[in-house]
Amino acid sequence: MSCPVLELAQQLIKRPSLSPDDAGCQTLMIEKLEAIGFTVEAMDFNDTRNFWAWRGQGRTLAFAGHTDVVPGGDASQWNNPPFEPALRDGMLYGRGAADMKGSLAAMVVAAERFVAQYPDHCGRLAFLITSDEEASAVNGTVKVVDALMARNERLDYCLVGEPSSTAKLGDVVKNGRRGSLTANLTVRGVQGHVAYPHLADNPVHRALAALSELVSIRWDEGNAFFPPTTMQIANIHAGTGSNNVIPGELAVQFNFRFSTELTDQQIRERVEALMQRHGLDYHINWWLSGQPFLTAEGELVAAVVNAVEHYQEFTPGLETTGGTSDGRFIARMGAQVVELGPVNSTIHKVNECVNAADLQLLSRMYQRIMEQLIA
Amino acid sequence: MSCPVLELAQQLIKRPSLSPDDAGCQTLMIEKLEAIGFTVEAMDFNDTRNFWAWRGQGRTLAFAGHTDVVPGGDASQWNNPPFEPALRDGMLYGRGAADMKGSLAAMVVAAERFVAQYPDHCGRLAFLITSDEEASAVNGTVKVVDALMARNERLDYCLVGEPSSTAKLGDVVKNGRRGSLTANLTVRGVQGHVAYPHLADNPVHRALAALSELVSIRWDEGNAFFPPTTMQIANIHAGTGSNNVIPGELAVQFNFRFSTELTDQQIRERVEALMQRHGLDYHINWWLSGQPFLTAEGELVAAVVNAVEHYQEFTPGLETTGGTSDGRFIARMGAQVVELGPVNSTIHKVNECVNAADLQLLSRMYQRIMEQLIA
Ligand SMILES: [Zn+2]
Ligand SMILES: [Zn+2]
Repeated sequence: MSCPVLELAQQLIKRPSLSPDDAGCQTLMIEKLEAIGFTVEAMDFNDTRNFWAWRGQGRTLAFAGHTDVVPGGDASQWNNPPFEPALRDGMLYGRGAADMKGSLAAMVVAAERFVAQYPDHCGRLAFLITSDEEASAVNGTVKVVDALMARNERLDYCLVGEPSSTAKLGDVVKNGRRGSLTANLTVRGVQGHVAYPHLADNPVHRALAALSELVSIRWDEGNAFFPPTTMQIANIHAGTGSNNVIPGELAVQFNFRFSTELTDQQIRERVEALMQRHGLDYHINWWLSGQPFLTAEGELVAAVVNAVEHYQEFTPGLETTGGTSDGRFIARMGAQVVELGPVNSTIHKVNECVNAADLQLLSRMYQRIMEQLIA
Repeated sequence: MSCPVLELAQQLIKRPSLSPDDAGCQTLMIEKLEAIGFTVEAMDFNDTRNFWAWRGQGRTLAFAGHTDVVPGGDASQWNNPPFEPALRDGMLYGRGAADMKGSLAAMVVAAERFVAQYPDHCGRLAFLITSDEEASAVNGTVKVVDALMARNERLDYCLVGEPSSTAKLGDVVKNGRRGSLTANLTVRGVQGHVAYPHLADNPVHRALAALSELVSIRWDEGNAFFPPTTMQIANIHAGTGSNNVIPGELAVQFNFRFSTELTDQQIRERVEALMQRHGLDYHINWWLSGQPFLTAEGELVAAVVNAVEHYQEFTPGLETTGGTSDGRFIARMGAQVVELGPVNSTIHKVNECVNAADLQLLSRMYQRIMEQLIA
């Protein structure tokens, strides 16, 4: 195997970096970056390894990504063991091949080629790498961003290597993400025996009308970049297990994925007003895991679209759908943030894989983005 | 202690008869019944001891009860250990004192006195005793009743010794019980990620309107003997625990306590029609634990009311409230069924107790009922 992108991707896949264990992936990346003149700063927080690396000065283009992967699952269901990468019929198989060790390899090799061509590039090229994106994401990108902001580091453009593509490399580019807000609702009643309901107060009965109304609300219509806000009940639990005990408490957890048409504050207020209007004895613990962010237009979007168009026959779609990503933390720095990575159809699954030619092409796209913004 | 009722009650309490373990209680009762000329037939089913005993022939008055008790719970919270009966301030303490070893002692002593007075009584006096009423009730009274019905045994009157009284002995007599019907509802959806609700189908969202309607239904108005039918959701569960997974299935368990104004069939049909009208993909497992039964009037009710009025200053109230009892099985034999027992305020609790004088009085009431019906 003479292609440096595939070679590095396989070296990374061989390291079983289950969150937050980096398993040596970052050391491998750091060696390569230091070899081409990067200054590397470890930014470990608790059990999580992170690093921030930069080369040059001026307008800053940072590549962001994570070395950690989700577990392999049932290894017997894989054609090759999840941490023993294999090339077969033009596909590279292994846990993290698509999410996102392939992207990391493409970034590093793109940087090597870019630096060889432009040793005195006029802007600053940077890497922001974490080993805790797939798990709690508490000690990863969010803490690195906090540290960088605390010392007034400037970050103009951020290219996140998450697998954004759906059918062909570059068919979808993410230029934003919806916000994510979780409500942990407790409705209190009075426990009792089902034969004596007048002595009890069933919190399930009390809450049903309010919940029924809640799930029928149309929160907004979305906008040009965002689909309408959605709300889903993820968990609901009440009862002792016995068929003759009226439960004393109902627990409901629901999650909003919201557009830039709404703020988390507006959602909270509307939900609480509804609970109060229904006269519930309730408590809600709110957890905002990410504000929505959007890079509607600008140099980064233009450079990414150009890079895809240069290597493919189509123009990428700009989307904000899907889950959250570490882009939500980086957007807080005021940077333009775009996600471009390989096809995501096998991520987190058995026999995760990526098209080998796509990875080579992705590296060229990354390189072309560097050339447009900081050459 | 010279009172035979209290003496026998204490002997029974000393035997830790946790369902279905009889711990020798029935042997003790059988010895006393055989001594006064009863024929005793063991009717054990699987792990459960039961017996059927009779004396004389003709119209049959059976006393029914259970020797098993619920666990003592935290023994350190008792003033005396739960299986070491103690008389204190006129109260007899111990697990089963009120539910229902006190009643069993009162029945046996009443029979001894009645037989001594009427050795050639004209009707048949019988006992139907089980050791599995508090637990599953699968191998207890229901099986004995099946066996008796299979051989065409006739049972005209049945006096159940369950603790029916609320404040004073005999203030409440149960002349029936509501039916109990449990629905185990499963609503099926399609599991998915909360970020992609269009690819999933949330069964909680689907079911909320149907459940909201279900709990607002007024099933009937009750009647002269029964309060209105009630329905309570006892358990509701959906969700994987994760806040980003849309559950694939919702499980709801609800229980009806229904009057003689409704049949279980009518309830089932109405619930299923509602689920279908809401277009749910659902399944319900129904479990009928007891049909409602009622002894509106007759010789047994008259004899019980007379017995209470003879020893107290008041007329007992006839009620059908509360949980189920083994009376539901005996009623199927076509017998008149009435429950009369001590005050139930401490049953199943720490420091369960019964007024000692009440037990002596209860035995006299039982004896007077025998005299009226089969002397
Ligand atoms: Zn990822
Ligand atoms: Zn009982």
